Amino acid sequence: MAEAPLPRELWQHLAQASTATVTTQLFKRGLRRMHLQGVVPVSRGRRLAGEALTLRYIPAREDLDVVEVFQNPEHPQRKVIELAQPGQVLVMDARRDTSAASAGHILVTRLQQRGAAGLVTDGALRDSPAIAEIAFPVYAGAASPAMNLTVHHAVDINVPIGCGGVPVFPGDVVLGDDEAVVVIPRHLALEVARDAAEQERLETFILAKVRDGAALPGTYPPSARTLEEYRAWLEDRGRLGQPPA
Amino acid sequence: MAEAPLPRELWQHLAQASTATVTTQLFKRGLRRMHLQGVVPVSRGRRLAGEALTLRYIPAREDLDVVEVFQNPEHPQRKVIELAQPGQVLVMDARRDTSAASAGHILVTRLQQRGAAGLVTDGALRDSPAIAEIAFPVYAGAASPAMNLTVHHAVDINVPIGCGGVPVFPGDVVLGDDEAVVVIPRHLALEVARDAAEQERLETFILAKVRDGAALPGTYPPSARTLEEYRAWLEDRGRLGQPPA
Amino acid sequence: MAEAPLPRELWQHLAQASTATVTTQLFKRGLRRMHLQGVVPVSRGRRLAGEALTLRYIPAREDLDVVEVFQNPEHPQRKVIELAQPGQVLVMDARRDTSAASAGHILVTRLQQRGAAGLVTDGALRDSPAIAEIAFPVYAGAASPAMNLTVHHAVDINVPIGCGGVPVFPGDVVLGDDEAVVVIPRHLALEVARDAAEQERLETFILAKVRDGAALPGTYPPSARTLEEYRAWLEDRGRLGQPPA
Amino acid sequence: MAEAPLPRELWQHLAQASTATVTTQLFKRGLRRMHLQGVVPVSRGRRLAGEALTLRYIPAREDLDVVEVFQNPEHPQRKVIELAQPGQVLVMDARRDTSAASAGHILVTRLQQRGAAGLVTDGALRDSPAIAEIAFPVYAGAASPAMNLTVHHAVDINVPIGCGGVPVFPGDVVLGDDEAVVVIPRHLALEVARDAAEQERLETFILAKVRDGAALPGTYPPSARTLEEYRAWLEDRGRLGQPPA
Amino acid sequence: MAEAPLPRELWQHLAQASTATVTTQLFKRGLRRMHLQGVVPVSRGRRLAGEALTLRYIPAREDLDVVEVFQNPEHPQRKVIELAQPGQVLVMDARRDTSAASAGHILVTRLQQRGAAGLVTDGALRDSPAIAEIAFPVYAGAASPAMNLTVHHAVDINVPIGCGGVPVFPGDVVLGDDEAVVVIPRHLALEVARDAAEQERLETFILAKVRDGAALPGTYPPSARTLEEYRAWLEDRGRLGQPPA
Amino acid sequence: MAEAPLPRELWQHLAQASTATVTTQLFKRGLRRMHLQGVVPVSRGRRLAGEALTLRYIPAREDLDVVEVFQNPEHPQRKVIELAQPGQVLVMDARRDTSAASAGHILVTRLQQRGAAGLVTDGALRDSPAIAEIAFPVYAGAASPAMNLTVHHAVDINVPIGCGGVPVFPGDVVLGDDEAVVVIPRHLALEVARDAAEQERLETFILAKVRDGAALPGTYPPSARTLEEYRAWLEDRGRLGQPPA
Repeated sequence: MAEAPLPRELWQHLAQASTATVTTQLFKRGLRRMHLQGVVPVSRGRRLAGEALTLRYIPAREDLDVVEVFQNPEHPQRKVIELAQPGQVLVMDARRDTSAASAGHILVTRLQQRGAAGLVTDGALRDSPAIAEIAFPVYAGAASPAMNLTVHHAVDINVPIGCGGVPVFPGDVVLGDDEAVVVIPRHLALEVARDAAEQERLETFILAKVRDGAALPGTYPPSARTLEEYRAWLEDRGRLGQPPA
Repeated sequence: MAEAPLPRELWQHLAQASTATVTTQLFKRGLRRMHLQGVVPVSRGRRLAGEALTLRYIPAREDLDVVEVFQNPEHPQRKVIELAQPGQVLVMDARRDTSAASAGHILVTRLQQRGAAGLVTDGALRDSPAIAEIAFPVYAGAASPAMNLTVHHAVDINVPIGCGGVPVFPGDVVLGDDEAVVVIPRHLALEVARDAAEQERLETFILAKVRDGAALPGTYPPSARTLEEYRAWLEDRGRLGQPPA
Repeated sequence: MAEAPLPRELWQHLAQASTATVTTQLFKRGLRRMHLQGVVPVSRGRRLAGEALTLRYIPAREDLDVVEVFQNPEHPQRKVIELAQPGQVLVMDARRDTSAASAGHILVTRLQQRGAAGLVTDGALRDSPAIAEIAFPVYAGAASPAMNLTVHHAVDINVPIGCGGVPVFPGDVVLGDDEAVVVIPRHLALEVARDAAEQERLETFILAKVRDGAALPGTYPPSARTLEEYRAWLEDRGRLGQPPA
Repeated sequence: MAEAPLPRELWQHLAQASTATVTTQLFKRGLRRMHLQGVVPVSRGRRLAGEALTLRYIPAREDLDVVEVFQNPEHPQRKVIELAQPGQVLVMDARRDTSAASAGHILVTRLQQRGAAGLVTDGALRDSPAIAEIAFPVYAGAASPAMNLTVHHAVDINVPIGCGGVPVFPGDVVLGDDEAVVVIPRHLALEVARDAAEQERLETFILAKVRDGAALPGTYPPSARTLEEYRAWLEDRGRLGQPPA
Repeated sequence: MAEAPLPRELWQHLAQASTATVTTQLFKRGLRRMHLQGVVPVSRGRRLAGEALTLRYIPAREDLDVVEVFQNPEHPQRKVIELAQPGQVLVMDARRDTSAASAGHILVTRLQQRGAAGLVTDGALRDSPAIAEIAFPVYAGAASPAMNLTVHHAVDINVPIGCGGVPVFPGDVVLGDDEAVVVIPRHLALEVARDAAEQERLETFILAKVRDGAALPGTYPPSARTLEEYRAWLEDRGRLGQPPA
Repeated sequence: MAEAPLPRELWQHLAQASTATVTTQLFKRGLRRMHLQGVVPVSRGRRLAGEALTLRYIPAREDLDVVEVFQNPEHPQRKVIELAQPGQVLVMDARRDTSAASAGHILVTRLQQRGAAGLVTDGALRDSPAIAEIAFPVYAGAASPAMNLTVHHAVDINVPIGCGGVPVFPGDVVLGDDEAVVVIPRHLALEVARDAAEQERLETFILAKVRDGAALPGTYPPSARTLEEYRAWLEDRGRLGQPPA
């Protein structure tokens, strides 16, 4: 990518933001469909954040998609793994077809070895129980034992794709947690992340009030007075040397 | 609700009945579709029982469903939470559309604070990992990070709705366990619950026999002789001061 | 079944093979659709292997499918349980309709008591939380509290069926793990199992190399040189008296 | 079929009844799901009435379902055609899978030649434009150019099947018009047909009144007075030697 | 409706606009989802334009939805027909469930008699072949012979509903042609209709140029020069006393 | 395309072959999924044959897909039309999403003007009633009035795509009739077309025999004797100077 590198600050903000909060920030900017449909975490407790590296599949053809194709190190499914850079998230467009896998245990392990940030596919994964054991954030549409060749033909690396109904351009920022995966257009990433982190701090404060018995009106959304309380609370935490949320 | 309150006995019976058993009792009365389709528990090990308080959504319209609407404390999604009474289950008709959430962490927390019995939606929930941590029974169609405004427009409180393909009238009895959610028409609730509790006792006895090696014929369904054994077993337990099952 | 019994060796090979590996071996033989779609394990950590005993359902009819039918010990859903032999897997064709159950806790318990190897249905199960607690491999499309009579009418025992989109002939070999269920045509079972076990050993070796930092080219698929290393590694393990993988 | 033949009167009644009216009569008898879902006429203006002869498909297996199988005259898809008797409707259970055909032009032509009453499949048909030209009532889920072997394996003739979500027993009465196909259980056929023909006459009268400006209350459903008028109208037509409707 | 009546001019503009053009005008105003999904014309060559009168269904319950309910003239499905005013379009929310009908021939005929502008349902219709013969614009999701009671329970008249995934408020403008049905929020109706009629005129001109061999660049969308030509053409037609398009 | 041009003979054979017959020839060569799913003719009575020119869409993004993009003559949806050559079929990958259109009347008219052979999309078309009137073969998944920008973002011209679940490479042969669209890999096109034309001739002969009352065994598939008769019939027609079928 010839594009300017993303600032370190971006990742710090994202580390404090859920996919729900980021999705709200995108909604406020008129982007309503940046969360993947039908894609779930393979195991709980991972967090994903990185830049999209893409792989595109089309439907397989029985004469082209035979096991021998993997002898060719240029086969796109294999090559994209060896191209992955630290911090990249491999995002696969499998046309939401989960009747066969789009990757398996060995490829995911190699991707992790290369320092990639994670893997997202709107297709299935095979060896999914083993993949769930790896300390690596992986998201997929389902588990399927069948090889990718059964229904998928890999064609392109790092072109714009669709994944889970969302447009993904190479270099877009991909964020995942236990709820979902959301894609942030690269040029909006910093402002969205900054506002999301701030929204998280405010909602942490609001949630505490609700747990203490506050009714919704005046609290959520916050009235001018609640916002004032929030600012005082924030300052307080700052004085105590605590991280803001 | 102007309707007569439900008897305490009802809840005691329901505490001993699974959704499977209650569904059988409804089937025996000609009601075949009172179990929600596509709605699952957000976390395991909760039990839900209460009276339905309903919220109705229609599809969103971009000019109406903007973040500012929540400034209005009369917004139905927010107002229904503040109307919830102890023992009520908030049931949302989200038209089985899970592409965005119908509620999130703060609203669910407030609902719990108000003493409600639980939440059921045939749409999605956002902040679902946090919601799963609350000791509160919640059932939904999926997780989605997107705000309800993305696809849902809240219109009505406490009107008859559909949820998961089931008709739900305000005041109907809603029962949930780790398997499913089932709705019992209010006027049938007591007899269904009583018969379900009895059926549970009998099936506990039958299961014990099957575990001891009994074949199905004569045991399940029970023959006259097995029923006699069952009655003796019941009396025995009564004599020993044990609860019947 | 009048067919020749399956060799003990078959089960030993299968004990070392995942459904993913077996599916690859079937793919190599031109069989691309032997893995069930939409069928998942009811609880994790079980392994299933056995010979198919089948039950066929058609849609229910309200006048035929009434609770009294179970008084007849010849009712196919009940009879098939009492026919199950040790090592058999009961496979149910429920037309992928999960709006009601195809079996429940008592039947599954009896099936286990009879020594069956497991249960697979492309419909739903009721009492699924209780079934998940049994140390018995069970696979289904979903949980549903509703009795089978609600949508299913049992008609045939041990005829060829479809299950999860896969043809299943009585006596076919059924294998399940935490990922999926796959069906191996009986006449291919031994060679598929043998080759799958060998493939597992090779992939164990390849995975170890990838974990040690090997790049995919030359490793996966293995070059002549990698295969040589593999053979040395195999011999080594043999010398050490270790099982090959 | 060893069953008693159906009376000629049945077919006379059915000739005057739409599938909508018959479905209402079934509903009144507690049968709510006897109309096929997802099955439509291949061409307009045909009427279908006859007794069900069934064919059952399961999913295909690549090694079994090769073009050579048709060399065998006992292949069930071919044999069932040669077994068809005048007045029978061939009903195929294709598991609602329309990704390949369940029959084509030559088989349909032969079926017509044999005097069969029609063909119903919940799968697809190939050569559908040519089939639409034949003066023979045919109903299917879709058109597909692919041979049945692609996804279907024929297994059984004249066993109970599901078609379009409806149970079909050999010998059941099958009725089709431009709207739908409905199955009438054989033992109910005469009374359902008789009541349906009567309902058609009444609705013809009601429709005429509505066309003349009558409001719904008192007309549809008819009040005692409207029924009186209807009886007078019926008598009148009788006097004039006209068929009742 | 207490709302101000819609101007006659609106209907004149709409008479010249296709649903495609109106949908473009709504898109330009940020409304992307006002066209019904899964709803098609029952017969070709009709045009629909009118104000929405709504009916809301929830799922049926077997004990409530029995044929006797129609004895009550207040039953919402029947009452809404008798409330329909000239120029109104009856829009039914059937939850996109087409497994049974939401109306039939007699009701549609009565609706036409009352001078209504048409009928739209996202459910099915029964007697659809007869309905297709009436010179009245009707749109539905499918044909089904089954009575509405089979799956639908009518609850409300003239409340906001969803239909085909679109929000419909009583009094909204509903437009239908051979392609689709689109809903225009009442407050936007005049400006959308006016701009749509103008867009139609321009596209008529552009289409003529394309038919004469013009390439797309400079023509579609039109360059400044093409727009100039268009204005000259418009004036010309005006001079000739022709309607503008 | 740098590839060798396709021989004129190919098109002559294809002119005599239905999509059903071509699909059988592909099946015989191990290609089971070359017929598009969910794509139907916009109007009857057209035949399509040509070489694929492809357009690829990904999901739209609200900030990118605004009406102004069409000012750019390089926009892929517009540019691909101006690139189309006589004999080419424009095939669009719309990810089977028919909730908005992938093209409309003006673009289709321009495509026809350029001499293209037809248009195939697995998305929807707008202005579909007008398109149905053009003497130009067009196939689509549905009609939708909404602009492509609503859900589609055009990205690539003439790359391999998926359409209706089928892989399509630029230059592949695309055949359509009133039943379906099928894709023939370019390198197989001539032999498939030749064998399909021969199969059509044989099936014409077989059909005539079946119409004359021949039973299926020995006729379909043809016995050695029937094949002999066929060859005599063929020669006869040759002698009479008639085209073979």
